[in-house]
Amino acid sequence: MRILVLGGDGYLGWPTALYLSAHGHDVGVVDNYVRRQYDHELGVQSLVPIVTLHERVRTWREHTGRDIAVYGGDLCDADFAYETFRDFAPDAVVHFAEQRAAPYSMIDRKHAVYTQTNNVVGTLNVMFAIGEINRDIHLVKLGTMGEYGTPNIDIEEGWLEVTHKGRTDRVLYPKRPGSFYHLSKVHDSHNIEFGCRIWGLRATDLNQGVVYGQETEQTSLDPRLSTRFDYDSVFGTVLNRFAIQAVLGRPLSVYGNGTQTRGLIEIRDTVECIRLACENPADAGEFRVFNQMTESFSLGEIAKTIQNTAPRPVEIEYVDNPRVELENHYYNVTHTALTDLGLRPHLLSDTLLTSLYRIIEQHKDRVDVRALEPSVNWRSTASAPTPVHKTA
Amino acid sequence: MRILVLGGDGYLGWPTALYLSAHGHDVGVVDNYVRRQYDHELGVQSLVPIVTLHERVRTWREHTGRDIAVYGGDLCDADFAYETFRDFAPDAVVHFAEQRAAPYSMIDRKHAVYTQTNNVVGTLNVMFAIGEINRDIHLVKLGTMGEYGTPNIDIEEGWLEVTHKGRTDRVLYPKRPGSFYHLSKVHDSHNIEFGCRIWGLRATDLNQGVVYGQETEQTSLDPRLSTRFDYDSVFGTVLNRFAIQAVLGRPLSVYGNGTQTRGLIEIRDTVECIRLACENPADAGEFRVFNQMTESFSLGEIAKTIQNTAPRPVEIEYVDNPRVELENHYYNVTHTALTDLGLRPHLLSDTLLTSLYRIIEQHKDRVDVRALEPSVNWRSTASAPTPVHKTA
Repeated sequence: MRILVLGGDGYLGWPTALYLSAHGHDVGVVDNYVRRQYDHELGVQSLVPIVTLHERVRTWREHTGRDIAVYGGDLCDADFAYETFRDFAPDAVVHFAEQRAAPYSMIDRKHAVYTQTNNVVGTLNVMFAIGEINRDIHLVKLGTMGEYGTPNIDIEEGWLEVTHKGRTDRVLYPKRPGSFYHLSKVHDSHNIEFGCRIWGLRATDLNQGVVYGQETEQTSLDPRLSTRFDYDSVFGTVLNRFAIQAVLGRPLSVYGNGTQTRGLIEIRDTVECIRLACENPADAGEFRVFNQMTESFSLGEIAKTIQNTAPRPVEIEYVDNPRVELENHYYNVTHTALTDLGLRPHLLSDTLLTSLYRIIEQHKDRVDVRALEPSVNWRSTASAPTPVHKTA
Repeated sequence: MRILVLGGDGYLGWPTALYLSAHGHDVGVVDNYVRRQYDHELGVQSLVPIVTLHERVRTWREHTGRDIAVYGGDLCDADFAYETFRDFAPDAVVHFAEQRAAPYSMIDRKHAVYTQTNNVVGTLNVMFAIGEINRDIHLVKLGTMGEYGTPNIDIEEGWLEVTHKGRTDRVLYPKRPGSFYHLSKVHDSHNIEFGCRIWGLRATDLNQGVVYGQETEQTSLDPRLSTRFDYDSVFGTVLNRFAIQAVLGRPLSVYGNGTQTRGLIEIRDTVECIRLACENPADAGEFRVFNQMTESFSLGEIAKTIQNTAPRPVEIEYVDNPRVELENHYYNVTHTALTDLGLRPHLLSDTLLTSLYRIIEQHKDRVDVRALEPSVNWRSTASAPTPVHKTA
């Protein structure tokens, strides 16, 4: 298949591009490199050094002889989006190309507006490009488990069978997300479901859990194939951040009482899920939702897992929760669609966290410990991600 | 109370401003006049001539001695929004200031993107202004019944009690709207509900039915106080459009088989609903949803009502439906919250449609009959609202 990976320079987009290429697909990547720009804005960097996208692609060719096409540009630029889709003529489009950090979207009004316009407009342009150029292109869109929030009923895969006053319907699963970022994904999902209805688009919406891990079989071939690894409090995801705190011998900072539960997924499962979604496309007009996660843990449980496996003794510290979210909530998620397609998950208990600690150990001198502190408060309309935001 | 009406120069914003002023409130209106600009773009005009906002406000002062403050500017300009909120210091904000036509949002990609960014960013700026300046300001936001779509279960007022696998929760009512415009309102609703959770905002989301009628007690005091009356296929709402076709002796054009059902409300009930919402504010942190409609009719029933009351014999014509929507669907809506607050509806059967016909008769020479033809097709990614769009 011809598969275009939007946001193919990012944490997951890049390993996905390699994985799909390794599996024999013709891959193109689209990116405007804004993820690297956020690093400059926040004064942080990936724990693991990364080379430019062009060098990544050259390295991949050296190792495998396989080409990956690169399209540099912004999907909010409709002309660029249309030209790219016309030029590459994909069978499937994997859409990672969104601002993806909840805290980033909660910094202040500008970051909230940026996140929602960037994500929603980019996705609208992708939908219109497909609608105009070839409605058979399968849109595989990255969403997040955070879209659902924490309802007191089981979380189903995007749709819910409801009986109310003696009548029944299958409705979109009601969502109550927890940040302006998560909201942008809910907006996308509603827009895409509409596109399926009016234009017969084929769409798979992947509500992904919190991803952990950094290496895949492909990225570990060569240091120049590494993907980024974020540890800062704005872009770093929770398990990765705990692992880094553990290696540094710093307390694992749990927000609130740690009973908040998250769906998790290992990075190698992410790329496999994307392959499965692409190779088993949605029907014309179908808006299909998969919960792309493999197991659930509370933040406290994640912290304990890290504490128990860490290379040195570490403490767990409970800090004031900068977010507004439920603690002690119900959380039970259906996630069978991807295993039905053949996913065989890497579970946390079986994962060699030691390889994660090894990677961190190797690069720990690159850590700016100030960047680990939570810097964005949900209750404020204007946070300054200090001290990293200030020029000293 | 001090009440700021956003979009106070529009079809409903202006009569609302007058009604609130007549009821003793201190009123300010905010508008960027873009609704008048859409007329230029589409080459159409309000059936009833309207004067400038400044002349409207002067006329109101002449008749009543009451002042209405005018703030000219765009709510997508955050500086303007913040300055206006600081200057007027409202107790309540009534937010009509959005692009409000489904067909307009479906013209092409640019109009879809414009509608969603204009509406979502404007509302985010309003939320942040309230969050930053005074979280007690009650946000009364205009939504639409079209957000719900046509579920096979009863439509409740914004929230739904769901029992699933033996557990129960109160969830946001799941929505499947029918245009990029309607979607923008769904996005707003999700954003605002989040604002109530994180900042304790007080919000009332009014999911309004299709409004008909043109006069209120206040607007009929003086021709210079008239509000606009749209008959074109892009901005004209269905009952008003049928009434105009009837007066012109043209067939009433029903889209599809006419079984599509809509919630309706008379313009005098709209302004009363807004007053009731303002005078009975939501609690701090409460996201309250009212279904602002008084009765439901199918398009066919609306056409027959017009046919039966029209000043001259007219035919009903069934045309290909330019929209993608269900026909022969279930539709039963709960709308008791506003009657519980005291609304005494004007029902269609009791309404003097003759006064509507009189208004139309008086201005019928201003009609461009080409503008009545449906010009935007939901199945296309790029409609041209011809012939009115072309410069001959």
